[in-house]
Amino acid sequence: MKSIESFDNPKYKLAMSLMQSKYRKKNQMFLAEGLRNVELAIENPKTIYLIFIQEDRINEPRYSNIIKNTGDKSFVVPSKLMETISDTVTSQGIVAICNFESFMIDDIDFNNDILILDKIQDPGNLGTILRTADAAGISTVICTKGTTDIYSSKVVRSAMGSLMHLKILFIDDYESLNILKKNDYKIISSSLENALDYNVLSTIQSKVAIVLGNEANGIDDKLLNLSDIKVKIPLYGAAESLNVGIAGGILMYKLKERTLF
Amino acid sequence: MKSIESFDNPKYKLAMSLMQSKYRKKNQMFLAEGLRNVELAIENPKTIYLIFIQEDRINEPRYSNIIKNTGDKSFVVPSKLMETISDTVTSQGIVAICNFESFMIDDIDFNNDILILDKIQDPGNLGTILRTADAAGISTVICTKGTTDIYSSKVVRSAMGSLMHLKILFIDDYESLNILKKNDYKIISSSLENALDYNVLSTIQSKVAIVLGNEANGIDDKLLNLSDIKVKIPLYGAAESLNVGIAGGILMYKLKERTLF
Repeated sequence: MKSIESFDNPKYKLAMSLMQSKYRKKNQMFLAEGLRNVELAIENPKTIYLIFIQEDRINEPRYSNIIKNTGDKSFVVPSKLMETISDTVTSQGIVAICNFESFMIDDIDFNNDILILDKIQDPGNLGTILRTADAAGISTVICTKGTTDIYSSKVVRSAMGSLMHLKILFIDDYESLNILKKNDYKIISSSLENALDYNVLSTIQSKVAIVLGNEANGIDDKLLNLSDIKVKIPLYGAAESLNVGIAGGILMYKLKERTLF
Repeated sequence: MKSIESFDNPKYKLAMSLMQSKYRKKNQMFLAEGLRNVELAIENPKTIYLIFIQEDRINEPRYSNIIKNTGDKSFVVPSKLMETISDTVTSQGIVAICNFESFMIDDIDFNNDILILDKIQDPGNLGTILRTADAAGISTVICTKGTTDIYSSKVVRSAMGSLMHLKILFIDDYESLNILKKNDYKIISSSLENALDYNVLSTIQSKVAIVLGNEANGIDDKLLNLSDIKVKIPLYGAAESLNVGIAGGILMYKLKERTLF
């Protein structure tokens, strides 16, 4: 098994560069850290570019299993190299370089509900929302311009592998969403004004694109204007609002209560 | 208005000590950072012990309003003192020392649903769960031994003021929960085994104590054994689980669908 010892090794330098958003975009690659994340990533051979494993871990069963299954793509590194590309306090000693797939509007499966994320800012929120969408059986996520980088380490970590399951695409303007209307989607936004109780979601007899908005400013007016239905989740106590991830979870699972149409 | 200039000022040293869990427990005090958090804290005069405001902020309307409403409790500090007690990347220049109220089992309002948190570890999750409980009209939260410190800066920040709205109490052993049974509560745990679909929650005709468990290990067996009903949220996609905060939000809002009993 091959090893990398030097900070100047080109593969290692690629990994270091991927800690920055601009190099992730340029190379169409990102880092996935941690044992479970890497195990999920290798399920799709196209995803894995290469894997760094800390030298004192290679004999542990789950690590040696990864090495066995990825062959030439695995490289042993000393702890000092691992530390620099690890973003966690207690590193598990494994980091993969993954390719990301770029999807276009034409790649959308227009038979399934869709999630639209409008300028979500917090990486932890974004990762948790992707994990929830995956759990709720949504397979396509559309991110508007201004949404935080979905391939940052915190998003990858909190998405818990769901990044590898979802079709995620990016749009520059809200007009692109008109294709959803042409494909008989109802666009549904959460909003505090002129909104119906969210329980209405269990009665909607069509495909749905559900919109979650920015933590501070909510959903952009242009996107609200494109929406067919606005819903709100009632607040019963003294809290002024729900976290956007929590609201998203409640709404996506409410949609699952629809009988098939 | 009084100012504090020195790192050796006893009030300032108290604030610095409260960045550590052991001193929060010893003094029964915690730090609340940020404008909105402090505005919420001062709504209950018993909560606020004192407030530090960065000198370049005192003429901004919301800050001067806080100073007006708290009088002797507000102190101006230079930015170098603020930086040390601030835990955020972009500080808003305001930190309050708050008293926390200790509640006992006897303080519980036995007319309302209750949330039980079993060894929740992640401060962000814990804060978000408290915010959600508050939104869902739950007023009492019981934390088992091993739950992360609820007064750490990250919990306070993600709870968005809900820490000041809730009765939060701590138990050392699961047997204390028998008082809930004596008061006609059904204890409901989320579990993957032998569990009913969570939609059953909308039909339960009694008061409910809903349990959320540790991120990695779920709910302790002792507490599962005390539970009257186990429920699970189905996973429709490829995700292996939901984030505990998301699961909590879905469950707490499902409980709100019960008709009054």
